[in-house]
Amino acid sequence: MITNLHQLYIHQIKDLHSAETQILEALPKLAAKANCDKLRDAFNHHLEETRDQLERINNILAAHNEPRGTDVCDATKGLIKEGDKLMLEMTGDAVDAGLIASAQRVEHYEIAAYGTAKEYADQLGYDNDVDLLDKTLEEESNANESLTKIATGGFFSSGVNEEAKVSS
Amino acid sequence: MITNLHQLYIHQIKDLHSAETQILEALPKLAAKANCDKLRDAFNHHLEETRDQLERINNILAAHNEPRGTDVCDATKGLIKEGDKLMLEMTGDAVDAGLIASAQRVEHYEIAAYGTAKEYADQLGYDNDVDLLDKTLEEESNANESLTKIATGGFFSSGVNEEAKVSS
Repeated sequence: MITNLHQLYIHQIKDLHSAETQILEALPKLAAKANCDKLRDAFNHHLEETRDQLERINNILAAHNEPRGTDVCDATKGLIKEGDKLMLEMTGDAVDAGLIASAQRVEHYEIAAYGTAKEYADQLGYDNDVDLLDKTLEEESNANESLTKIATGGFFSSGVNEEAKVSS
Repeated sequence: MITNLHQLYIHQIKDLHSAETQILEALPKLAAKANCDKLRDAFNHHLEETRDQLERINNILAAHNEPRGTDVCDATKGLIKEGDKLMLEMTGDAVDAGLIASAQRVEHYEIAAYGTAKEYADQLGYDNDVDLLDKTLEEESNANESLTKIATGGFFSSGVNEEAKVSS
């Protein structure tokens, strides 16, 4: 049973291990479906980051002498299933907007989960963990902002949402 | 098939209908498990807000002559399943911290989903929808911030994370 914050923290880190492992598998599929080069590059860039993020989680577990855990993160599983189902229903110029919609939900899951884990680590005085989790949290926030920019367009170009609007 | 932004928008609104319906069922269970009065009040307050949010989604669907949809939001289903499983493993003072961890993941899902829907509505010129979605988005952000405050403690009191730390 989980009765204190340290145990809950380790549970959260193991949940993140499962989440990152599932995301690592999903990202190449998202990149393969993307029509827009910027979006494909963003997914591939985040794939590289995700490898580092999983390594950070492994380092945290090792520092606490904890195994990786066997539980699957049901939330990430549900998020990926929802994204897969959406893609089966989509075709044409709106595909990229749909990919971004699904990916931003996953990013927000990670932002919530890493934010919680970082708060716990801070409370528990695990300063090295705080640094590692903060690094990932910043990457997740940046990934989310990049996706928003690709969706809504930058200053000099229209975004994928605009392109999906005019499609029929 | 979904081929343009309007169709994707309606799909997202139907997804939110399923999400809000599931959350409406889950919130009383979270409130019942909370030990801290502030947390119980926060869940009950958000239950009232969620009823209004579902009504707004119904109004949007009605304005576009769309039925409610039959698809279950798999992501919300996964998020709730994960929270339920965590609660089966928890006891004592850390329960409230665990409830907040799960609830904030759901809030972030909604922030991502409403943020996307609002962007689409804006792009499509559905100004009345933008207003309704923006109102909900603000409530979700406030609910998330309230949970953070309860977890980490305000200026004059320690939060539920601090209480969970000293528990054994």
